[in-house]
Amino acid sequence: MGKEEKKAISPTREEDYSEWYQQVVKASDMAERSPVRGCMVIKPWGYSLWENIVRELDDMFKEVGVKNAYFPLFIPLSFLEKEASHVEGFAKECAVVTHHRLEKNADGRLVPAGPLTEPLVVRPTSETIIGDAFSKWVSSYRDLPLLINQWVNVVRWEMRTRIFLRTSEFLWQEGHAAHATEKEAMERTRLMLDIYARLAEEYLALPVTKGRKTAAERFPGAVETFCIEAMMQDRKALQVGTSHFLGQNFAKASEIKFQSFEEKEEYAWTVSWGASTRMIGGIIMMHGDDDGVILPPRVASSHVVFIPIYRSPDDKPKVMEYIQKIAMELKSSFYCDRKIRVEIDDRDTGGARGWEWIKKGIPLRVEVGPRDMSQDSVYVARRDKPHREKISMKRDFFVKEITNILDEIQNNLYEKAVSFKEKNTLQVDGGKAFYEFFTPLNKEQPEIHGGFALSHWCGTGECEAKIKEDLSVTVRCIPLEQEKEKGKCVCCGRPSSGRVVFAKAY
Amino acid sequence: MGKEEKKAISPTREEDYSEWYQQVVKASDMAERSPVRGCMVIKPWGYSLWENIVRELDDMFKEVGVKNAYFPLFIPLSFLEKEASHVEGFAKECAVVTHHRLEKNADGRLVPAGPLTEPLVVRPTSETIIGDAFSKWVSSYRDLPLLINQWVNVVRWEMRTRIFLRTSEFLWQEGHAAHATEKEAMERTRLMLDIYARLAEEYLALPVTKGRKTAAERFPGAVETFCIEAMMQDRKALQVGTSHFLGQNFAKASEIKFQSFEEKEEYAWTVSWGASTRMIGGIIMMHGDDDGVILPPRVASSHVVFIPIYRSPDDKPKVMEYIQKIAMELKSSFYCDRKIRVEIDDRDTGGARGWEWIKKGIPLRVEVGPRDMSQDSVYVARRDKPHREKISMKRDFFVKEITNILDEIQNNLYEKAVSFKEKNTLQVDGGKAFYEFFTPLNKEQPEIHGGFALSHWCGTGECEAKIKEDLSVTVRCIPLEQEKEKGKCVCCGRPSSGRVVFAKAY
Repeated sequence: MGKEEKKAISPTREEDYSEWYQQVVKASDMAERSPVRGCMVIKPWGYSLWENIVRELDDMFKEVGVKNAYFPLFIPLSFLEKEASHVEGFAKECAVVTHHRLEKNADGRLVPAGPLTEPLVVRPTSETIIGDAFSKWVSSYRDLPLLINQWVNVVRWEMRTRIFLRTSEFLWQEGHAAHATEKEAMERTRLMLDIYARLAEEYLALPVTKGRKTAAERFPGAVETFCIEAMMQDRKALQVGTSHFLGQNFAKASEIKFQSFEEKEEYAWTVSWGASTRMIGGIIMMHGDDDGVILPPRVASSHVVFIPIYRSPDDKPKVMEYIQKIAMELKSSFYCDRKIRVEIDDRDTGGARGWEWIKKGIPLRVEVGPRDMSQDSVYVARRDKPHREKISMKRDFFVKEITNILDEIQNNLYEKAVSFKEKNTLQVDGGKAFYEFFTPLNKEQPEIHGGFALSHWCGTGECEAKIKEDLSVTVRCIPLEQEKEKGKCVCCGRPSSGRVVFAKAY
Repeated sequence: MGKEEKKAISPTREEDYSEWYQQVVKASDMAERSPVRGCMVIKPWGYSLWENIVRELDDMFKEVGVKNAYFPLFIPLSFLEKEASHVEGFAKECAVVTHHRLEKNADGRLVPAGPLTEPLVVRPTSETIIGDAFSKWVSSYRDLPLLINQWVNVVRWEMRTRIFLRTSEFLWQEGHAAHATEKEAMERTRLMLDIYARLAEEYLALPVTKGRKTAAERFPGAVETFCIEAMMQDRKALQVGTSHFLGQNFAKASEIKFQSFEEKEEYAWTVSWGASTRMIGGIIMMHGDDDGVILPPRVASSHVVFIPIYRSPDDKPKVMEYIQKIAMELKSSFYCDRKIRVEIDDRDTGGARGWEWIKKGIPLRVEVGPRDMSQDSVYVARRDKPHREKISMKRDFFVKEITNILDEIQNNLYEKAVSFKEKNTLQVDGGKAFYEFFTPLNKEQPEIHGGFALSHWCGTGECEAKIKEDLSVTVRCIPLEQEKEKGKCVCCGRPSSGRVVFAKAY
């Protein structure tokens, strides 16, 4: 599109990507900051997107035998302390409940009262409290595998927050499994990672790299952390989901023991996996344009909005009647096994309505006026096309074709994201080229750089730390499909046997 | 059933209703106490019931235009203080977050650190934090009505807890609406009450009395609280859901103002309504028998369990294959617009399996063995019938009839509950008869008494307080369908114009 065309979002991505993100979120009406430090309010348009993501992921979990449950919000401090590296990882960001009442003090002001004998931590994650339950539920190999998930809020007190991407409270699911053998537990870890990758690619339209984390980036207490990493439009990496092989660390901390088939007492092998409302940030950041959000149809808050167009108010009733009928037909049809979601915007706010829906990212906008009706047609605009490109379609054809059109949009978003990711993922060798790759492309936007560097690394924490220190770049993952290749570490020149993904990250 | 028959639950309801409840919950594997004081763990069988209730209620809300959203878990103390009676109502049961970090002290022990400048209360309910958002979202009459709901956890620090009925943390939904006029707000309050009554009667199989609360029993800060009250098997009342007309109290506290059509600045009229996991307690307490829980099919965690029966392990594969085929057919069929939920219990634990499912309350148990297969039939037991009453049915007939059978069970539970409630709801007059009505029927179970007394009350807080003091009986509600009738207050003898519902309550 030409420069001259005015965009709905200011600044544009090119002008200031970071501020563009804030403005897009605002314009989409998906969420806003709350008066509580670092916490967000998820508004209906954003929450509905979340509900759709939840539904898809929840179905995938249930297909592989995972059952939902609910565990307490509060974790006694003594539980958190059971796994040393775990508590160390979360101690700096814990909301701590210390009192269970409010009382008026001498000045008549309400103050906390009723001190607790043991402080309670608002769950940042639930390995320890769930581990305690598992220790009671598991006694024989017959009780295994135990496959549990919960959809809940968690709190990690963050100093620098950004809506959806990093907030002090967020919504997520955390899955927890106990297995009888190391092999099964590792298979489970990988299976859940595959499910996340499927969700990201097939539903969120986000191509991802699957890999394992380095020791420095692992979940506190895990033996191995696996992740999927997506690329955003500023070429930074966003970790979309993680799956942790916990070995017997948490089983030992929580005493999750069972009697094996051979009647020996053994510790279980546990796994946990999590994905959060951060996925919404990924959708916005990767698919959005300078006119706002673009929602992938499969999880979109809604699929299509009808906008009645008329000059005389007398025309409104018959236009509305015509629209209601199409809407009814669509609402009882299915797109990818879910009912089609339909909006009708009958507000009297003229052309402003169209722009609002563009900013909200609804996949299809359909205008209907008396002239369209007289030809039994509707006027259809796709959010993934320039906003002026509207096509007149016969009404019945539109009803018949809508699922194909939605699929085209879904695929289009995915293909665009794939080529962007491929274009900005390069093999980078030699210390100098590596440092240049991560040099800002543009002074005004110091954050934007080369993208994902597939580079050699010696595997030491020292080089990893130096690169982080110098460039704020980290090893995002060691790809699962890493090819064996001899090379030299981009930092120290020592030998390496394969390339890893380096990138700046959210 | 005869006394001689052994029951799965001990004690029976007759022996000790209160302890029976604890044992039924345990035997059902629906939930358990957690190591966190007063908080429960909802296990998969209980959570799945909750998911089904959520789905039904959520659909009903969406049908009347309510949209889901999410608001912060934490409420700044200053927000809670905005409405004086509101904070007073909740001050005694607030979990208070005072720190945002853990740090090692001189002894090397982890202690709370990073004190907050303003304490945060873990939401006991969200009128004030949502009111703050509404004050930003509403500026014109065009923004109204604003109809929002959230499905969340809340915390009310309780001293005496009971799983599902009264726990320090529970799951619920809280709906919040802002309207332009008092009339609309009152209509909304009543509409949401009607939805609760529909959920209770049509889905939970719990007949309810709709009514309004007395001033003493109102939600803190409300102008009027409406409720639905169900009767449990010990004849006590359980409040299943409440809908509050908040007048302009919270709008004034949170500055929810709008410009009216006549361009005048006005305060909005707000409404809130809530129902919680307590409903699960109601299902258990009303429908359970001395063999365990009986789940109403429409919300049952699962509908039917297949139990393969065979003597020789060689028979297992063909029995399982036969069952898998029926299960597949059923899983793709619908009962009341939801997919039929099917379990297969292929554990090698013999007869114990049947009892486990009885205690869990699954509506249908279907045994299949080689002999049944040879006749192309299955052996069906209904949870609402004596457990030995099993009927052989042709396989195809069962598949075709299952929805009718489930409906019969649903209706049967409801009808039983209706006649129980009617039988134990009596018009009681005169101080003496009233006091006798609430005298324990049985010394061993001092809690069990007459039931719901429809009695005259002068309307004063004094008489209400005296009756509460004397008998632990309260006015559960002033029925919406109260007939005008002249009478005398059962406490003071002063005139009254209609009967109210007195009962002991959970």
